[in-house]
Formats: sequence, C-alpha cells, structure tokens
Amino acid sequence: MRSLVNGQAEENISIRDRGLQYGDGLFETLAVENGIVKNWELHWARLCAGCERLFIPQPNELQILSEIEHLLAGIGKELVKIIITRGAGARGYAFNEVSASRIISVYDWPALESENKTTGIELFLCQTRLAKQPLLAGIKHLNRLENIMARHEWQSSCYAEGIMQDSDGNVIEGTMSNVFLVRNGLLQTPDLSNSGVRGITRQRILDVSKQEGITLQQTTLGLDDLFNADEVFVCNTIIGIWPVKKAGEKQYLVGQKTDATFYNPVTRLMQTKII
Amino acid sequence: MRSLVNGQAEENISIRDRGLQYGDGLFETLAVENGIVKNWELHWARLCAGCERLFIPQPNELQILSEIEHLLAGIGKELVKIIITRGAGARGYAFNEVSASRIISVYDWPALESENKTTGIELFLCQTRLAKQPLLAGIKHLNRLENIMARHEWQSSCYAEGIMQDSDGNVIEGTMSNVFLVRNGLLQTPDLSNSGVRGITRQRILDVSKQEGITLQQTTLGLDDLFNADEVFVCNTIIGIWPVKKAGEKQYLVGQKTDATFYNPVTRLMQTKII
Repeated sequence: MRSLVNGQAEENISIRDRGLQYGDGLFETLAVENGIVKNWELHWARLCAGCERLFIPQPNELQILSEIEHLLAGIGKELVKIIITRGAGARGYAFNEVSASRIISVYDWPALESENKTTGIELFLCQTRLAKQPLLAGIKHLNRLENIMARHEWQSSCYAEGIMQDSDGNVIEGTMSNVFLVRNGLLQTPDLSNSGVRGITRQRILDVSKQEGITLQQTTLGLDDLFNADEVFVCNTIIGIWPVKKAGEKQYLVGQKTDATFYNPVTRLMQTKII
Repeated sequence: MRSLVNGQAEENISIRDRGLQYGDGLFETLAVENGIVKNWELHWARLCAGCERLFIPQPNELQILSEIEHLLAGIGKELVKIIITRGAGARGYAFNEVSASRIISVYDWPALESENKTTGIELFLCQTRLAKQPLLAGIKHLNRLENIMARHEWQSSCYAEGIMQDSDGNVIEGTMSNVFLVRNGLLQTPDLSNSGVRGITRQRILDVSKQEGITLQQTTLGLDDLFNADEVFVCNTIIGIWPVKKAGEKQYLVGQKTDATFYNPVTRLMQTKII
C-alpha cells in the first residue's frame, strides 16, 4: 500500500481525527486500469453527495485526482481507496472548527476467483439486519459495523458474499455489493431510501437498463422475491458482476446452454456492458 | 492531550486501522480525580461487553490501568478516553487476522457551566432519529454519525444538550447523555434495547434508586411523557447530573423553595448520591 495523508507521504493519522474517534467521514473504492480511474464522475458525485449530507466541505477534485495519479504505478489493475473525514478536532460530537482530512491509498488489485464471474457464487443469508436510517442511507460513510458483523457470520469460502435484510426483512444489499433480481425479464433492485449504499456499479446498471430498454424497478423486495427470481446477481466496483448460483436452498441456472444462449441472459448482458 | 497508542507515546495511528476505516471499535470516557479513576469497574464491564458483542479480544485490564496511570498528572480533575479498535488489517470487512489497538488519551477537564447543575439546562429537540439496531444498542461503539448529526442541529449556547428519539418517536437519550423523567415520584428512563448507549452514570442511578427505594422503570417513553414529567434530568460521566429547566415549550421547576425543600427532589437526591 502507498498512501498520502493530506498530500504528504504518510501511513499514519492523528488519533484526534474524527474518522477514528466517531467514524465521522466517507470513503470511495476505485478501480484503476493502466493509470485510468474508472467511472470517476460517478464516484466523485457520490463522494460530494456524502459530504453535503454530513456537512463536510467538498474536497478539491483536481487535488485528489493529482494525488491519486502521484501514487499510481500506472500499469495493470490497481485499487485506490479515498477516505475523507471531518478532520482532527476537539473531543465531543460538535464540529464547528475542523478541516477535513483526505487519505488516498493505492492497494494491489485483490485476487478474485475468476469462476465467480462465469459459474457464479453462493450467497450466505446473513442474520445481521441493517437498521433503517434514511439520513445515512445511500452514502458511503465510515460507520460500517453492521456490514462487519454480517460479514463475520460466515467463514467458509463456499460463500463469496452474504445478503443482508433490513429490520423489516426487506432484502437490501450484499455485505460489500448491491443485488439485482430478474424475473420474467423484469430487472429489480432494492430501494435504498432507508438503508444500504448506492453503489457505482449499481448506478451503471440502472443506466444500461435504460439504454437497453430493460424495465427496471427500485422497489421493496423480500427473501421470497430472491428465491422466486430467475436470475440474481451482485455487483460492485471491484468484483464487477457476479451471477448467483445458490442462495439458501434455492439454486439458479447460470451459464451457457447447448444452443449457445444463456440461462441468465440479463446478467450476461450486463456483464458484457459493465466492464 | 497526552496519549499512548499500544503502549507507545504516540499521537498517530495507522491509516489501516479499522477504527478509522470502518468505525470498528469502542470507546470509554473516564472521569479522574486526583489520580483516581471513578467507577472503573462499571466502565471496564461495559468495555468488555462491547468487545464481546463485536468479537474483539478483551484487552488486558492491568495494562490499560497502568497506561492510564502513566499518563495522569495525578492532581485535580482529568478526563481519560480509551479507544479499543479491532486493529490494523487488510482492506475489506472480514477480520480474521488482526490484533486490537488500544489508544489512551488524557485531556484537560472540560469547562462546564457550573449553573447547569443548579439552575438547570434547556434541551434542544433534535430532528435526527436514532435507527433501531439491537445488535449495537447499549455498547459505546465508534459508529457515532447519528449523534454527530443530531448535535449539529443547534449552534446556540442556549441549549446544553439535545434530546433524541428513535425512528418510532420514542425518546431514547441525549446526544451525549442519558435521560431520566420523574412523575409522581416514579423514576423512568428509556429502554435501550434497540438504540442508545447504556451510560455509566445511568447505571449508577439505577443502583441508587434501588438502594433508596425509588421505583424505577426502564420503559418506552414518548415526547408526551417528557412534557408531562414533573422533573427531567440528563446525566453522563463528565457532566454528572443536569436538571432540565426547559424542553420545547415545557418549563420545569428546578431548585430550592422558600421552605428549603426542592422543586425537583428526586433529581436533587440523585445529585447528592452521584458524585
């Protein structure tokens, strides 16, 4: 990992930083290929929306891009994480006089099972529920204990992702991804007004579905909808799109038929469009 | 501020620390007087309960006490903050191989308005709701964005604290304190099964009420209960007990009558017992 903290080559941050003290900040995880940050405009828009929601001053876009560029090797795939916190401040929740911290880190691209994209993954059904908090829903803030607790429910490598419901039992997202269902050609994804993160790949899928004339609903979905779907897939910036081959006892058909068409044609279409 | 990070004199922590990355940890705020940590057993018990809930290994009690002692001036009032995080780890929510970080900081005792204890405070009524999350309720974890957003709703120094409700409209706590109501001699405090922090001073008040034979209910309370109470007070380790003289349009009688008895006798009794 190589990193810059407020523009300085640095791997540490003040213990007074409110990111540590209270999880008072936001983050973005970016995919970079050969020095090009993918979908920067979408990440930047979400980061700015998060800053606005939390009353954190908007960072300087060109400064961040320049710092990212400074850290990149520029060859192959790299992963960049941006953390923006409210900065170091006095003790206590009030925050009148602090200036935001920015932390840019470049990581090696993670090793992912390549067959996850082709033959699909098995979903763990998490017991940990997401609380309903419209004030913090959608943005990628640093209060992530729910996701951590959910991710800790399984250790077996059989499961590449776990699905989370909110306190009412609505399916919301994966621990690190968004989820989509297909039934009778209709594409559905959970409404994220009360919980969950509005993923960048999710947004791109919404855009592609419009272009391709695929009807899409952002709606309330339960486990029944998951189990009755023809296709299910999860997505994020790093994994791209993973078809789901199993969730609980339900098995989904994934991959190519003998006639070269696909059992999961909508998932497949999205995989070809979202690169 | 003087501080130790994992036993070393240090004011910084790795940006890989999961406390910063995800708010993945816990904290305690301690009152110290002339070198003596007040109510250590209660703070330690809550910290351990939090560690157990989050699957963070229990820290070494004697090590923490020794580090606190190392930092204390030992004269007058001092404020100690302990932060325990899951430690520095790889990127991602899974946490198999990390070792916890401990951060001990000593701060100057904050300047508090002395009349808050005698003539009482005015409560701001916060719009920010606490989400219902039984998995994280009660413990003092580092995911504190809700409290920050609530505290930011008012800037006027007229209000010394703000009251927060959960998403169902139940009164839960102050942004930095617990709340108690008295009506017809009955002491009531919100049930914290779904939201809020189980404060140490709150626990001491529960204990004192038993000793004094005062009937106490931990129950569901609404704004109506707040407005219909004879006495209201808020409490935490640092402020002690502050009577409330006003909440919204409702005014409460606080202080001594001409016959030397008190308008708010239960609050007064608790103030004499909780030092």
